[in-house]
Amino acid sequence: MKCGLVAADGAVLHRETRPTPRTVPPRRGGGRAVLDALLETVVELEQKAAADGHRVRAVGVVVPGIIDAENGTVGAENLAWAGTPVRAELQAAVGPDQKVVLAHDVRAGGYAELRQGALTGTTNSLFLPLGTGIAAAMVVDGSLVSGDGYAGELGHTRFVHGDAAELCACGQWGCLETVASAAALARRYGVRTGKAVDGAREVLELLAQGDPDAAAVWSEALEALIDALVLYTTLVAPTRIAIGGGLVGAGETLLAPLREGVHARLTFQREPEIVAAVLGEEAGCLGAALMAWDRVTADETGEQQV
Amino acid sequence: MKCGLVAADGAVLHRETRPTPRTVPPRRGGGRAVLDALLETVVELEQKAAADGHRVRAVGVVVPGIIDAENGTVGAENLAWAGTPVRAELQAAVGPDQKVVLAHDVRAGGYAELRQGALTGTTNSLFLPLGTGIAAAMVVDGSLVSGDGYAGELGHTRFVHGDAAELCACGQWGCLETVASAAALARRYGVRTGKAVDGAREVLELLAQGDPDAAAVWSEALEALIDALVLYTTLVAPTRIAIGGGLVGAGETLLAPLREGVHARLTFQREPEIVAAVLGEEAGCLGAALMAWDRVTADETGEQQV
Repeated sequence: MKCGLVAADGAVLHRETRPTPRTVPPRRGGGRAVLDALLETVVELEQKAAADGHRVRAVGVVVPGIIDAENGTVGAENLAWAGTPVRAELQAAVGPDQKVVLAHDVRAGGYAELRQGALTGTTNSLFLPLGTGIAAAMVVDGSLVSGDGYAGELGHTRFVHGDAAELCACGQWGCLETVASAAALARRYGVRTGKAVDGAREVLELLAQGDPDAAAVWSEALEALIDALVLYTTLVAPTRIAIGGGLVGAGETLLAPLREGVHARLTFQREPEIVAAVLGEEAGCLGAALMAWDRVTADETGEQQV
Repeated sequence: MKCGLVAADGAVLHRETRPTPRTVPPRRGGGRAVLDALLETVVELEQKAAADGHRVRAVGVVVPGIIDAENGTVGAENLAWAGTPVRAELQAAVGPDQKVVLAHDVRAGGYAELRQGALTGTTNSLFLPLGTGIAAAMVVDGSLVSGDGYAGELGHTRFVHGDAAELCACGQWGCLETVASAAALARRYGVRTGKAVDGAREVLELLAQGDPDAAAVWSEALEALIDALVLYTTLVAPTRIAIGGGLVGAGETLLAPLREGVHARLTFQREPEIVAAVLGEEAGCLGAALMAWDRVTADETGEQQV
């Protein structure tokens, strides 16, 4: 769990990382343990803020799951949450004087990139982190898209067809995530060669050394990513696409072929810039705080919240 | 050209249809002739309104093309327009007292369906007319998406892969429009059988009679459409999808397999209702008028325009 204290001007006053309780077998407390750890973290950070002479106005929590905005409940397989009343528990923990904002982690990351990062100044753009999984934060006509919490699942759209399609954890076949996530690169290299690798980082090192199997899985990932970016460009017309997540550590090895591939495929569409996201692993955490501050501001001015 | 006079409450007071000057070879005046016909139509409709005791407050014009919202210019291959200053010419024709609104025809149709048709009450939804071509109007978080005039080109996204992909008029391969538009159904039936048919309507009649070639092209169209609806649902999370255009005349022959196909494919996504659009060929024309009235209201109240 990445967490921190952020001032009204977006300055990060404190940051820390805490372990998330294990929810995979052997389960030790499951989703309740995760929620308890979250509540404990929030309370302890408030105490730290108070000790440092600050007053916490709002708490922003972002999770890799589907948020029911109306009820404040969250479903997140990786956290063993299903209809878990996260907002109510958080509100009870912090008391009635503080705002509580729940959001999706990738959308929060996209919001941080939009406000302070690679998407600054855009009104139609995309934040696409390529990490263990792939989800997207869509900026459309100046606003971050929520789709009632369901939008942006570009990673679970089919870009591998026919016999090459693999079953995704989501139950569909041929999803972008099965071929182009950091986890997929490592897994597919292992399946292809019978050799275990230490994550996508090692696949990229092998690629740099001219390993043909690394080149093959990389090329398949690029092809699916180019398809996805062309599709997104055709449908939603972003002016800029910021690639984030662990894979963007590959730099131009990733970005240059994406730019060339997209450029070659577009005909009538408006061509987007393709750039690296700039906020790294802090994006989601910072976005949570910015969204929480926005709620404070919106409630004070009567404006509609994000 | 479909045109009419619409009251502030959305009631249609008058409607008529006029021919669009030919712009395909042999060209007779090209894009200028189309623009002149448009200006003449607008002026004559104003005269009719005045004769009937009405005052025209605003003019809404929708075109099947890409509109530069900033400059009011339009590019539309079918009208032989390229950077044509339609807004300025319209404004000059109607004088400074009237508002002029330019919009994309499919988006205007979607707006009419949202305000008075099959999408009423939705905040995340899709209008997908299947006609000579295929474009989409996207409603996201309560607003119609513009994407600076470029968004919604679901018809030019690749849903046919490998050797089966055909070259689309847009220059890309395997677009939805090459297999699932009304024009594509007729063309593909002709190519497959060597027999010319009188449009998609005849293909549907042959399908009803059990013609195996009609069944084959229909099945390929359905497969691509199901892919497109699953993709859109995964990425943008609509609660309702309204299918319009000529093909929706097929009724449940079209809608039932789309519903079944989408239902069978979705796993974690929110399942949308799939319904027929209700405003038919009038949708674009009505949407143009509603958008024009919105501009009048927005300017009077200081609200942001659609």
